[in-house]
Amino acid sequence: MDTLFSNVTVVTMDEELRVLFSAFVGVTDGKISYLSRKAPEAKPQQIINGEGMVLMPGLINCHTHLAMSPMRGYADDVELSTWLNDYIFPREDRLDGRCVKAATLLSLAECLRFGTTSVSDMYYFCDEIAEAVAESGIKANISRAVTFFGEDFDFEKDPRCQEMVALKEKWHGFDNGRIKIEASIHGEYTSDYRVWDALSEYAINEGIGMHVHLSETKAEHEACKERYGLTPAQVLDCHHVFDAPAIAAHCVWLEPEDMRLLAKRKVSAVHNPCSNLKLASGCAKVEDMIKAGMNVALGTDSSASNNTLDMFEEIRAATLMAKGASLNPKALPAQAALMMATVCGARAQHREAECGMIKLGMDADLILLDFTQPHLMPCHNVMSHLAYAVNGHDVVMTMVRGKILYAAGKYLTIDLDAVVKELAEYVMPKMFTDRTESREE
Amino acid sequence: MDTLFSNVTVVTMDEELRVLFSAFVGVTDGKISYLSRKAPEAKPQQIINGEGMVLMPGLINCHTHLAMSPMRGYADDVELSTWLNDYIFPREDRLDGRCVKAATLLSLAECLRFGTTSVSDMYYFCDEIAEAVAESGIKANISRAVTFFGEDFDFEKDPRCQEMVALKEKWHGFDNGRIKIEASIHGEYTSDYRVWDALSEYAINEGIGMHVHLSETKAEHEACKERYGLTPAQVLDCHHVFDAPAIAAHCVWLEPEDMRLLAKRKVSAVHNPCSNLKLASGCAKVEDMIKAGMNVALGTDSSASNNTLDMFEEIRAATLMAKGASLNPKALPAQAALMMATVCGARAQHREAECGMIKLGMDADLILLDFTQPHLMPCHNVMSHLAYAVNGHDVVMTMVRGKILYAAGKYLTIDLDAVVKELAEYVMPKMFTDRTESREE
Repeated sequence: MDTLFSNVTVVTMDEELRVLFSAFVGVTDGKISYLSRKAPEAKPQQIINGEGMVLMPGLINCHTHLAMSPMRGYADDVELSTWLNDYIFPREDRLDGRCVKAATLLSLAECLRFGTTSVSDMYYFCDEIAEAVAESGIKANISRAVTFFGEDFDFEKDPRCQEMVALKEKWHGFDNGRIKIEASIHGEYTSDYRVWDALSEYAINEGIGMHVHLSETKAEHEACKERYGLTPAQVLDCHHVFDAPAIAAHCVWLEPEDMRLLAKRKVSAVHNPCSNLKLASGCAKVEDMIKAGMNVALGTDSSASNNTLDMFEEIRAATLMAKGASLNPKALPAQAALMMATVCGARAQHREAECGMIKLGMDADLILLDFTQPHLMPCHNVMSHLAYAVNGHDVVMTMVRGKILYAAGKYLTIDLDAVVKELAEYVMPKMFTDRTESREE
Repeated sequence: MDTLFSNVTVVTMDEELRVLFSAFVGVTDGKISYLSRKAPEAKPQQIINGEGMVLMPGLINCHTHLAMSPMRGYADDVELSTWLNDYIFPREDRLDGRCVKAATLLSLAECLRFGTTSVSDMYYFCDEIAEAVAESGIKANISRAVTFFGEDFDFEKDPRCQEMVALKEKWHGFDNGRIKIEASIHGEYTSDYRVWDALSEYAINEGIGMHVHLSETKAEHEACKERYGLTPAQVLDCHHVFDAPAIAAHCVWLEPEDMRLLAKRKVSAVHNPCSNLKLASGCAKVEDMIKAGMNVALGTDSSASNNTLDMFEEIRAATLMAKGASLNPKALPAQAALMMATVCGARAQHREAECGMIKLGMDADLILLDFTQPHLMPCHNVMSHLAYAVNGHDVVMTMVRGKILYAAGKYLTIDLDAVVKELAEYVMPKMFTDRTESREE
């Protein structure tokens, strides 16, 4: 046994949602090898004293754009179209692979610090994103978002598609599946049937997943119905997009028939409550999706529209929004919100056999939280605290496959000082040099 | 000069909402005595290096029930009536002054840790609440909530009213106004005109403030209209309740005419976004209240319905809820939400001349935040980070009247270990002994 967590409160997130007090969790060769109320006989290499601590599965962030961190707080409180056209797109035009790598590493440090052990990322310059993920030790499903507004589409010649193909060849399955590559149609409104047909065929033939934005804003949803007489979910389905195992981010404006269709197609929805509120996109009907049989996971979206990557904030926002919007205090209880960030996330990433629970044989993707601070006392119900009182700052250790990646303020795989230097000296000047500083006296 | 913050980013929250970079803030005899981009010539007793830090006015929590901390997470995801009748009231029946004091100290530690420097509390056993406040060094407006369901009301004999009178005599103005006592009608639905008349008269004669719950739930608001043909705001106004300087907590279901009336009466509303969402009470129309001319402050409500006392979470929730509910991303921008937690809070507490801004001559009620963590990098806009990315865990120092009460994990005025011991050995057994433990294996 490599590591033993002793006398710890274990939130298993397993089928019975068990909470074990003063328990022992052992890790051997990156897997969970021991789980009991009794101490093991085997002597572990290291013991982590879990008194006053809670051990739970690492959180799974199923929709983000890690490399957007340089634009965190760059523009807030503006219309979505202004935000994109006047602020985000002009800055993104200046990105290069070097910027993306540094920005991704900064975001990965934040993810690890706040207890996230696996992410689903959609962006471009994905080779550098994969490099950052590889170095950091986190798990990731990475996709190169394909948009297409041109005349003649040719999968074999389109640089975006070819970046995706090269990415898949180079990185899919890296480190025994720690990295998975997925296909990505950015959205119904940023491409057409030629892209949908080609990418669906590619994903199905290669046996990889599909990551799309779906019905995020009312305007986008209604424009699609106007254009095709079908909702975005319906029109993409007609083009076999959901024949590949797919995740659909946002799903704010899904109609009841969309939910039934996506449930039948086993599409996982990814709810991004904070980003949807901040951009005023609306409030996804999470309980209706669950009732329709859909798997619903959670995501932060990018830190440019959130403005953090703290998944505990999303858990809390998801349950509070569900209650507020329905005026029903029983809506989306603590357990359901926690499942969205763990087991449902693992399912959305097609990783349910390897993580999302604390269970013998699963990967040791674990986080430890300090429950001895005033805001977590007393503790009648651990699940309640995790959903309603904890946030990412309470995480004191993050482990992926048995390897500690963050502990007590230290990043074990990311040289944060070097990342900060690279950000200050290369990324920010490259992206923002013409910006008028308005520092007031 | 006693203390100098050097090379710090200062968010003044003054009339021009100035942000000063690499600035110097001096504190002398508990007051802000220096504010400049240049270092002072006078040599201070101590220097606090503010590099990478943000200094701002302490946050003001205008509606809470500090002593409810033992019930944090005791019951969630249930109907409000179930929550109150089956969980909260039976436990509150077991409270005594000793419980209340320990519970209040626990909450005050949480307040200080998360950057709150002044609170408006409404509860009972207020003598012990005042003792805890006095010891902790925080500022507080304290009120003994009066409810009355009996037959014959006599202000001179009613024990609740007499507790209020004794409280006012003993504590009002304590420590040069650090503690203020207010009158409190718990709510329209928990008393009648005899209480309203008597307490209004008392508050006006004594020149003290008034703290009420107002239109928190739709049911309460509608029942009042059914009963009196008037809204709660209207009926309380008829009984001169708002002739005293008043704060009205929640105001979720105010009608446009209520807002105009309360604005005319200079009543401050206290918005409690997280508690209102969690109990599914609804979403207060903050922008409408502001447009009607009302002063709107922020509060956490108790940690039994929140479940923390982190005012930064309320700031974020206030702006996100306003955007989500109106589908307008420009609604309640960062600056407005930050003002609610500082200057508007000071106004609601009738403390606007002494705190809520960083300004020469005001009390040094200050908090320092660490802006060097990954989730706060880069920093395009300090106000944006404070509203959308910071939370209470980023606070590294809390000062009231120039005295440091919390710094880097240490509570300088509260013996947290003793409070935790008292909670474990006295409070929890007294309140919860018959509770069936359901610790699962």
